[in-house]
Amino acid sequence: MDKVNLRDKLSQIAEHWSPRIVGALNGQHVKLAKFAGEFVWHQHADADELFLVLDGHLAIHLRDRVVELGAGELFIVPRGVEHKPVAAGEAQVLLFEPEATVNTGDAVDARTVLAPEWL
Amino acid sequence: MDKVNLRDKLSQIAEHWSPRIVGALNGQHVKLAKFAGEFVWHQHADADELFLVLDGHLAIHLRDRVVELGAGELFIVPRGVEHKPVAAGEAQVLLFEPEATVNTGDAVDARTVLAPEWL
Repeated sequence: MDKVNLRDKLSQIAEHWSPRIVGALNGQHVKLAKFAGEFVWHQHADADELFLVLDGHLAIHLRDRVVELGAGELFIVPRGVEHKPVAAGEAQVLLFEPEATVNTGDAVDARTVLAPEWL
Repeated sequence: MDKVNLRDKLSQIAEHWSPRIVGALNGQHVKLAKFAGEFVWHQHADADELFLVLDGHLAIHLRDRVVELGAGELFIVPRGVEHKPVAAGEAQVLLFEPEATVNTGDAVDARTVLAPEWL
């Protein structure tokens, strides 16, 4: 593989809430996404999910609290924990999660991406 | 868990070549490290290893080429591929790899860390 420049890859993403794969290792995918607005409540039964904010601000709503992330901050949502990402503006996010992970987990939404594409 | 601020965590790392764990998910660890100078040639038989440069510059030497990474660039070294990280100055690096991964892989060095500590 070649190296991945995160800024270059992000510049190629136009759509919000549509993760693109930029790396694969040990059964996991590295994805990049742009978030804007409010996503759907969901959980992943078999996948812990890492969010690393590269630019902007992301609020990860959990049922009992909200985790506020700025650039250079990461949070891991454990498997089975309901969460709802919300970005007041546009947030640029790196995700790290098992290969089969679907963005909306157990929920179905117009933004569900069953098979993200490589970028 | 709480969120992780990468800059805060990195400020707590003094030693070079001594990765510290800042997150765990799906059998993988997220680690932070500061590199300076030349590391040892090694490979990981059962682990793909991701290097994301957060600050500085890192050259990942492979047997047939050198991958040059600046801040915001990542590279995945596939399992079984010999590599030698080299940082001309100080590089601040985020690593993703399986929990059992040892920094010097199949090599033994004064800098080998068999059981990295959480930060």
